Amino acid sequence: MAEESRRAEAGFNGGASAYPEAVDRLIDRLGRLPGIGRRSAERLALFILKGSEADAMDLARAVADVKRTVRNCSVCSNLTHEDPCPICGNPQRDRATVLVVEQPRDLIAIEQTGMYRGVYHVLLGRLSPLDGVGPGDLTMDRLFERLKSPKANAGGERVTEVVLGLNPTLEGDGTALYVAEHAQKLGVRVSRLARGLPTGSQLEYANKAVLADAIQGRQSMG
Amino acid sequence: MAEESRRAEAGFNGGASAYPEAVDRLIDRLGRLPGIGRRSAERLALFILKGSEADAMDLARAVADVKRTVRNCSVCSNLTHEDPCPICGNPQRDRATVLVVEQPRDLIAIEQTGMYRGVYHVLLGRLSPLDGVGPGDLTMDRLFERLKSPKANAGGERVTEVVLGLNPTLEGDGTALYVAEHAQKLGVRVSRLARGLPTGSQLEYANKAVLADAIQGRQSMG
Repeated sequence: MAEESRRAEAGFNGGASAYPEAVDRLIDRLGRLPGIGRRSAERLALFILKGSEADAMDLARAVADVKRTVRNCSVCSNLTHEDPCPICGNPQRDRATVLVVEQPRDLIAIEQTGMYRGVYHVLLGRLSPLDGVGPGDLTMDRLFERLKSPKANAGGERVTEVVLGLNPTLEGDGTALYVAEHAQKLGVRVSRLARGLPTGSQLEYANKAVLADAIQGRQSMG
Repeated sequence: MAEESRRAEAGFNGGASAYPEAVDRLIDRLGRLPGIGRRSAERLALFILKGSEADAMDLARAVADVKRTVRNCSVCSNLTHEDPCPICGNPQRDRATVLVVEQPRDLIAIEQTGMYRGVYHVLLGRLSPLDGVGPGDLTMDRLFERLKSPKANAGGERVTEVVLGLNPTLEGDGTALYVAEHAQKLGVRVSRLARGLPTGSQLEYANKAVLADAIQGRQSMG
């Protein structure tokens, strides 16, 4: 059959060649999420449709609540329900030490070790000239404000040390350099998280950069 | 440092080692969707959090609406806002011919060709003895009801032909056989979608099963 007569005959189906509007809309909205293609969005939408109404309402509420109740701490920019966040507001933490991370999930990873007693500063990203991310797109200014003025820091305390906890990547290192230069100019001591062999790994599989870090940063056993 | 003293020291962080409750809840709910692991759920939740409140509300509403407004057609089980669905309710369709598919998306694929004028029956699955899916878990009974009694069919019309549009897989073929046997017993003509070489493919890459189908079902050019 020729393509034209096919098209002509297609008229009788009257727009039935798609999901009901509410399903299409959900597929569209899910498809806007990162890493979710049209196919996955379709699968997720049909899964939600197959589940109970209570489960769907639960998910809808969780999505709505997250924007309504979660904000960034006005001191450290971590995600929080209260302002300042529970860490900045905790008098037991050492507020003279500020560990700088890129993202809230980095903060959580460090908190889970239970090894750090200071406070944090979340940059909400890293400097990335190629992607057009400059200092103004991050919470840099607020960090320097904390270093300059105790009033801007948690508990009104003067910051004496900045610990750089940025990712050990090209962009993370560039961001670390930028923070370090500014912090040193403000007379604040700067350190960074140690680099070396990851505990539990095998030396023979470590790459050159890791081994180089491990040799350069070798720690005295004395 | 020994593990115990680490744990003891960990007390000071007071539950700050996780996202705010609303973020955790959203991660949990997203993680219940198929194919979304903990890591992806975290990424999606933080993406939603970074976006605008309007976008989040839009997504929440789309999730809630889909369960509230979409149902299965009481005749053919296709997804629909109205009952019967626009296809069953369309007097221009040939309601004497019922094409049986597994899922709503199969129906949509066929509708998009614009080549089919009949109505449908969506089984909402396929027989799968290994996964414990029997006829009772599908909309089989409702299909046979339509074949037996014109009253149960769209527009009150008698069904004269069933077209099997199940997937060309082991389970799809088993399901087709089951439907065919029952339909034939009820005196209804049964056909199935043609098998052969997919248009646009190259013969040299077709597998043996496809070629066997193409040879067996060779079509007269007369």
